[in-house]
Amino acid sequence: MTITDSTATSAADAWTADRIRAADRAYVIHSWSTQGTVNAVPIAGGEGSWFWDYEGNRYLDFQSQLVNMNLGHQHPRIVEAIKEQADRMCYIGPGYAERSRAELAELMAQLTPGDLRMTFFTTGGAAANENAVRLARHVTGRRKIITRYRSYHGATAGAIALTGDPRRWYAEPNDFGVVRMFDPYTYRCPVGHPDPCPVCSGGPHLEEILQYENPETVAAVVLETVTGTNGLIYPPEGYLKSIREVCDKYGILLILDEVMAGFGRTGEWFACNHWDVTPDILITAKGLNSGYVPLGAMTVNERISEWLMTNKFWGGLTYAGHPLACASGVASIKAMQEENVLDNARAMGRRLDAGLRRLAEKHPSIGDIRGRGLFYGLELVKNRDTREPLVPFNPAGPAAAPMNAVIAAAKKQGLYLSANNNVIRLTPPLVIKPEEIDFALEALDNALVHADEATEPG
Amino acid sequence: MTITDSTATSAADAWTADRIRAADRAYVIHSWSTQGTVNAVPIAGGEGSWFWDYEGNRYLDFQSQLVNMNLGHQHPRIVEAIKEQADRMCYIGPGYAERSRAELAELMAQLTPGDLRMTFFTTGGAAANENAVRLARHVTGRRKIITRYRSYHGATAGAIALTGDPRRWYAEPNDFGVVRMFDPYTYRCPVGHPDPCPVCSGGPHLEEILQYENPETVAAVVLETVTGTNGLIYPPEGYLKSIREVCDKYGILLILDEVMAGFGRTGEWFACNHWDVTPDILITAKGLNSGYVPLGAMTVNERISEWLMTNKFWGGLTYAGHPLACASGVASIKAMQEENVLDNARAMGRRLDAGLRRLAEKHPSIGDIRGRGLFYGLELVKNRDTREPLVPFNPAGPAAAPMNAVIAAAKKQGLYLSANNNVIRLTPPLVIKPEEIDFALEALDNALVHADEATEPG
Repeated sequence: MTITDSTATSAADAWTADRIRAADRAYVIHSWSTQGTVNAVPIAGGEGSWFWDYEGNRYLDFQSQLVNMNLGHQHPRIVEAIKEQADRMCYIGPGYAERSRAELAELMAQLTPGDLRMTFFTTGGAAANENAVRLARHVTGRRKIITRYRSYHGATAGAIALTGDPRRWYAEPNDFGVVRMFDPYTYRCPVGHPDPCPVCSGGPHLEEILQYENPETVAAVVLETVTGTNGLIYPPEGYLKSIREVCDKYGILLILDEVMAGFGRTGEWFACNHWDVTPDILITAKGLNSGYVPLGAMTVNERISEWLMTNKFWGGLTYAGHPLACASGVASIKAMQEENVLDNARAMGRRLDAGLRRLAEKHPSIGDIRGRGLFYGLELVKNRDTREPLVPFNPAGPAAAPMNAVIAAAKKQGLYLSANNNVIRLTPPLVIKPEEIDFALEALDNALVHADEATEPG
Repeated sequence: MTITDSTATSAADAWTADRIRAADRAYVIHSWSTQGTVNAVPIAGGEGSWFWDYEGNRYLDFQSQLVNMNLGHQHPRIVEAIKEQADRMCYIGPGYAERSRAELAELMAQLTPGDLRMTFFTTGGAAANENAVRLARHVTGRRKIITRYRSYHGATAGAIALTGDPRRWYAEPNDFGVVRMFDPYTYRCPVGHPDPCPVCSGGPHLEEILQYENPETVAAVVLETVTGTNGLIYPPEGYLKSIREVCDKYGILLILDEVMAGFGRTGEWFACNHWDVTPDILITAKGLNSGYVPLGAMTVNERISEWLMTNKFWGGLTYAGHPLACASGVASIKAMQEENVLDNARAMGRRLDAGLRRLAEKHPSIGDIRGRGLFYGLELVKNRDTREPLVPFNPAGPAAAPMNAVIAAAKKQGLYLSANNNVIRLTPPLVIKPEEIDFALEALDNALVHADEATEPG
């Protein structure tokens, strides 16, 4: 279309907050939104665990944006690496070898557990999951995939079919061959069993499904090692090992999606390290390079690496192994190693955990506190005894009000949070400082009053 | 896995060509390849239309890598913009407004034809196509999608289902609701009709398919305005307009995929400008920012923009509207505008065209020369009269030898080319210079001898 007001583009400094806001409203389609209701705030900058708008409002980023900025905003080493690589080589096709691409792939082989070895780099988690599933089908010669209800694996057709989150409803029906299992959501067993419950115990539940599905038709089980957006659900002890054993028993590949949980988020390099389980394929993105350049990765084990030596890999994209993205990944990993970021994540996680448990003594709305490292979920309830959620599943409009009130009250105090259903996500940058954890706890203390108001006497 | 030789990582300068090559072979999974056969050459640098390896071999990039580097290698304005944005803000979540994101969206509205207005930014063409199809289904309330056999739309589950290229075979079966039409491949009508043939004439062919499919079940027709990888096929005059008219008659959306053909590649900003047709949704990527940062875009018309005001957009990704990517897009567009890149593309295209026609007088293997701007296909044949292709469709192993020999001979002379089936792709950066065109023509002249040897007397 033709835009008549060309005078506005005459000076570079014409990009005021108002103009950014107006252009955004007129021309930018925002994710998962009704565009007429979007009023996106222009952001002027960020540093470390903070970002700010053009009016000087500063926010402590207790989400790491979309749980991707593990090293926070504008980490100088990643910024520098991007600038250096930009000067050297922004892009070369995926058919060539390139220094940052090779170095990052080698680092992935070093960092990932067990016999994980070769990596295919994409531009994000969705494409990495898509490639993993296609590869698993070719390696096994089978088609069905087992995933969980409370999960999110991305929004492209294959990734959204794997997903259990209600966002998949709007891409259905599909015939992608997905069978779903229940989640190890021990706090909220779907049939009211005691915690830990039989449905949640992993292997046996998977075995029952396989009995009905025919294990010889199942290519892979795809799980978030720790469920992210859909409730910060940690598997009980023994869960992952039992899933791994059942997969091995039937020749089914285990694909662990650590797009959110990986790269120090839980206090270990990868969440599966907590339970000493190695997947056949590990999926990462987000914290891999803190999202400074779009990047995702599929890392496969020795057996699949060998299979790929003599069988064709039927996947690809123009930006596979993008040099600028890989350079930012190398810098990010080195910064995490050399600045002891995992130690900080664990220490700050303990501080956060202790503070949340103090808040629980005061706030009847806190039903459950789940987390390791800096990957925490705060589950809010109407009643601690009945565990009735503060808001219903997939709440629309007014039903979500009590949660929205908490988020809004936190924001007003400069604490940037989000929630999914009745669970608040507490996932700050891993470089957060003690006084910032304390700031968040104080703001949360004030904000939770709005949740307490919606509780009901036991 | 654990890598024991840690001494190699001790010095930054240890990343020699040999080490890059070794790490690449050991740890990088390459697209569309049997990994054991990959021996990727480490690339040291590039500038303008050239790139080079560590041994000093220089190549004239007559592919623009994957037809994405429209402004060539290391264009100083894009490099500078990336560095500036890296200093200002590498990333902010897609829920916020951000300067480069807003500016690029406004530029898209200005540049794109007709009433195209709002843009959703992805990390590449595949995700943009995926989002377009989902949106088309929601807007129309219909599910079927019509695409063409000779097409490539990306490799994620939805995009590969839209694709006609044999690469889709390895992601099949699917139930994505795709119906395929034939291509306007007038040089090679599938049933031997004269050129232009009735099958190739667009509207009538589509009408016949709709008669059998029920037009009220069809959400969209998805076409590459000019077919890229699958043969550089240009629609005959009137083709696109007739497709547009049939779509309008039945309330079907027209989605044009200009991931390759867009942003000056054919000598116009968008290929559809040649025929004065505006799609309902335009898909771009590659030349949008020359691939310096992963970026794709879905731009929708006024009607769909209005629909989105009151209906939810069911798509999203962490890197939607990535600031670093958008900044590179803004710089790329401004460079194209201010450096008269389209004029150069047209002038160099004329020079290339004239040279190719001179070569055709000498080389009996040249069957057809198709192109505008710098988006050319050179179709090679065994026999000009029968038009028998030099190699069969989707050739494997030895069957591809004559084409491979041409590509290898060109490379030996420093000319980087590629082919698909029997069509050589001639798609250099739009900033290419006259003497570089001449260099390419001379190398091609020498290389085509290998194709001539495979021709048969008429």
